[in-house]
Amino acid sequence: MPHDTAIARLRNLLGDRLSTSDAIRDHHGQNESYYPVTLPDAVAFPASTEEVSAVMTICHEEGCPVVAWGTGTSLEGHALAFRGGITLDLSRMDKVLQVNDEDLDVVIQPGVTREALNTELRATGLFFPIDPGANASLGGMAATRASGTTAVRYGTMKDNVLALEVVLADGRVIRTGTRARKSSAGYDLTRLMVGSEGTLGIITELTLKLHGQPEAISSAICAFDGIDAAVSAVQMVIQMGIPVARIEFVDAMSIRGFNVHAGTAMPEMPHLFLEFHGSEGAVAEQAERVGEIVAEFGGGDFQWTNKPEERNALWHMRHNAYYAAKALRPGCWVLTTDVCVPISRLAEAVTVTRADIDASALEATILGHVGDGNFHCAILVDPDSPAELAEARELAHRMNARALAMGGTVTGEHGVGLGKMKYMDEEHGAAWAVMAQIKRALDPSNILNPGKMVEVN
Amino acid sequence: MPHDTAIARLRNLLGDRLSTSDAIRDHHGQNESYYPVTLPDAVAFPASTEEVSAVMTICHEEGCPVVAWGTGTSLEGHALAFRGGITLDLSRMDKVLQVNDEDLDVVIQPGVTREALNTELRATGLFFPIDPGANASLGGMAATRASGTTAVRYGTMKDNVLALEVVLADGRVIRTGTRARKSSAGYDLTRLMVGSEGTLGIITELTLKLHGQPEAISSAICAFDGIDAAVSAVQMVIQMGIPVARIEFVDAMSIRGFNVHAGTAMPEMPHLFLEFHGSEGAVAEQAERVGEIVAEFGGGDFQWTNKPEERNALWHMRHNAYYAAKALRPGCWVLTTDVCVPISRLAEAVTVTRADIDASALEATILGHVGDGNFHCAILVDPDSPAELAEARELAHRMNARALAMGGTVTGEHGVGLGKMKYMDEEHGAAWAVMAQIKRALDPSNILNPGKMVEVN
Repeated sequence: MPHDTAIARLRNLLGDRLSTSDAIRDHHGQNESYYPVTLPDAVAFPASTEEVSAVMTICHEEGCPVVAWGTGTSLEGHALAFRGGITLDLSRMDKVLQVNDEDLDVVIQPGVTREALNTELRATGLFFPIDPGANASLGGMAATRASGTTAVRYGTMKDNVLALEVVLADGRVIRTGTRARKSSAGYDLTRLMVGSEGTLGIITELTLKLHGQPEAISSAICAFDGIDAAVSAVQMVIQMGIPVARIEFVDAMSIRGFNVHAGTAMPEMPHLFLEFHGSEGAVAEQAERVGEIVAEFGGGDFQWTNKPEERNALWHMRHNAYYAAKALRPGCWVLTTDVCVPISRLAEAVTVTRADIDASALEATILGHVGDGNFHCAILVDPDSPAELAEARELAHRMNARALAMGGTVTGEHGVGLGKMKYMDEEHGAAWAVMAQIKRALDPSNILNPGKMVEVN
Repeated sequence: MPHDTAIARLRNLLGDRLSTSDAIRDHHGQNESYYPVTLPDAVAFPASTEEVSAVMTICHEEGCPVVAWGTGTSLEGHALAFRGGITLDLSRMDKVLQVNDEDLDVVIQPGVTREALNTELRATGLFFPIDPGANASLGGMAATRASGTTAVRYGTMKDNVLALEVVLADGRVIRTGTRARKSSAGYDLTRLMVGSEGTLGIITELTLKLHGQPEAISSAICAFDGIDAAVSAVQMVIQMGIPVARIEFVDAMSIRGFNVHAGTAMPEMPHLFLEFHGSEGAVAEQAERVGEIVAEFGGGDFQWTNKPEERNALWHMRHNAYYAAKALRPGCWVLTTDVCVPISRLAEAVTVTRADIDASALEATILGHVGDGNFHCAILVDPDSPAELAEARELAHRMNARALAMGGTVTGEHGVGLGKMKYMDEEHGAAWAVMAQIKRALDPSNILNPGKMVEVN
C-alpha cells in the first residue's frame, strides 16, 4: 500500500480515528463537481491542534500528502487527494471556543459550519454574515476565500477573518494576527493563509469578525425584460453607493429551474433578488432609492416583503439554485463557472455569455452575486456524453478567457482547486512563480494538497 | 565609497537622477521620529517601472541595499538606510493613470499623495478615504498598511488596495490582483505586499478602491468628565454597530496642546471628535443615536455642525495633534506610540496608560482612533536629555507590553520600521520565523530595506 509507513504511524497516533475503510475513503473521494471519485489512501480524524501537528510531523517525515477536508462542498475538486496520501477530516474539531460579544468576534475550531455558528450566536444579537449557500465548514470557507450572496455588503472571508492558528507542513503551530481590529505589525500571514486551499498550512482555529443582527431586514424581487436592463440597474445601484446587503441576478432559465424545483410560478424572465439591512429608516430609504433605479431601467413591479417567512423562502430558493438547475435535466452533471469582472463590464459579460450558451447545443442557467461583478453558469451535461462534457468545457473556457480579457478573474469565490489550475499562468503571469516560491519556502516537500494552486516542479 | 560599483552603474542608468550630493542625501536621512540622521550612499529618482526594475537588477547583482522613499513621513524610521546603500525616491512617479469612475477605482503611480489624489478626483463625486493625517504618498501608505481617522468606517490600506504592480528584489515585475472586486485565484500577494514596508518588493503602481463622496457630512464634538466615560461611550457606539465615519478620542492634555497651538479655548477635558457620512436621513439618525449614548455616559453638550468650514477646522486641528503636542514643550522631541487592543479592553488600556504617564516625570498626550481600539501617546522629550529619552522609552515599552498582554498589537497603523522590531518576536511567536522564510524566498540577498520587519540571519 502506498504510504504504508506513514499510515501505520498515524494509526499509532490516532487509533480508530485513522480509517482505511472503503466506505470512509469513498466518502472522502466524492466531490460536488464532475471530477471522478478519487480515493485517498486513508482518512484521519484529528481532535485537536496537537494531533494535527503530530499528523503533519509524521507526514512531513514520511513524504505523505495531506489534503484537508471540511464538509466536501467545494466545487473545484479542492479536497480530492488525486496524488494519494491522507485526507485530514477536521469535522470533529467543531467547537465554538469563545464568543466575545463586546468585541464582535468569535474564536472557533475549523469544523464549525456557518449554520452551526449562527445557531450558537442567536441569543447574542450578533451573526456571521458570509453565506456561500452550502452549509460549509468555516475552516474550508477560509481556505477557499469563500463569499456568496452577502459579500457586496459584508465582504468575503478575507475581510472577516481576524486571526488564525495554522499548523505548517513540518508540524510547527503558528498564530497569525490578534483580536485587535487592525495592525501594521509584520507580513499579513492571515490573508496569505486565507484562500491558500490547504497548500500552505492546516487551519486549526479561526478568529472571525461578527456583525450586529440588523434591526430591520427587507427583501425585494423584480423582473426585467432583458439581461442588459437588469444588470445595468445593478451597476447603477453599486455606483450610487447604496449599501444593499444582497443583490442577486437570476436569469430566465434559472427561474424556470426554480419553478420546476420549488413549484413556484414566477414569470420566466431575468430577475433581481435584493435584501436590505439596517435601521427601519435606512432600509426604507435604500429600498426607495433602488426602486427608483429599477424603474429607470424598466424593471417590473418591485415586490417587497418584511415578512421573515417570505424572505426565508426567497433565499432558500436562491440557495437551491444548483439543485434547481439540475431539476431542468434530471440525472445531469453540472459544470459551474465563477468569473468576476469589473462592474463596468458586467452587462456585456453576462449578455455575451447568454448568447454563447444559446448558440451551443447545451442548456445553462446564469446567476450570480452581480453587486461584486461575480456570476456563475450552471451548464447541464449528460454524464454519459463525453461530447457534451467537452462542449461544456469549451463554453466555460470561453467565459474564463473573456473574464481575463476584461481585466477580471476566473474565480470570484469558488477557488482554484483542480479546475482553474490551467488559468493561473494567464491570470497571474510572473506572479504565479512568486506563489510557487512561497509554497516551496513553507512546504519544501510539497505534501500539503500537492498539485493544487501552484506548480512547484 | 561603499557600493561604488553599484552607484556608478546606477549613474549610467539614471544620469543626474542619481545623486550623491550631501544635501539630497541629508534630506533622505531625516525622519519624523527621534532616530539620528542616517545618510544613504546615494539617492535614485526613477521615473518609470522599467527604471525601478533596472535599478533592482543592478542592486541585486551588486548586493546593494535599496530603501524605498515616499514623502518621508513615516514615524518608525522605516525609510532610513541604516545599512547604507540606495534610497529609491519614488516622488517623480506621481501620475494618476486611470480614473475608472464606473468601477469606483483608480490606477496610480506610488508617488501620488493622498491629497493630490483627492484633488484630482474632486469632479468625479468619488474620493479615497484613508487619512493618516500626513499628506503621505499612497505607495508609502500601502507599504506601511496605513489607516488613520476614517478606518473605523472605510478600513485600512489592506481593505482599499485592489491590485499592485511590484518590482521584486531581482528586478522581476509582477502584478498582484485585478480590477475585479473579489477573487479566489491564488495566494493573496496584494495583502502580502501591503504592510511589507519595502522588504519584499517596490510598489510601482496601485489600483485603489474609491468611495462615493457622502451626500451629507456632519461633525460633532463632546467633552467628558473622565477618560473612562469617553472611551466607554466609544465602545458602546461600536458595539451598537453605528457606522460612524470617524470617532476620535482626545485627552485633556491634547486639548491643552490644541489651545496653545491653534489658539482655541476648549475646556481641558477628555473629548470625542466625531464625523458622520451618509444620506441626510442616515446622518441625522446616526447622530441622534450617538447623542443618546453620549448622554448615557455623562458626556457634555453634544455640539454639532454641518458647516464645512467648522468641520474642516475641527479636523485640521486634529491632524495637527503632533505639532500641538510639541507646542506644549517648544524644542522637544516626540516619541509616538501606536498600540491597538480589542475594543473591550480599550477603556482599561487608556486609563492605565494615563496613570503611568502621570506617575512619570514626563508629559504626554493621548489620542487615537478609538473606534478601532487604536490610540497613540506623544511623549515629549528634551532632546539633550538621555535620561528623559530612556524614561520615555520605558513608558512606551510598558504600553506595548500591556497591549500584547491584552491580546493586541504594538502597532495599529504606524508599522514596524526600526522602532518595533524588538517586539516582533513576542507579538508573533513562531510566525515571525515564517515571515523570515518568506523574506528569504523573495529576497535571498536581503537587499530590500534590510534589517527591517524580519531577521534573516
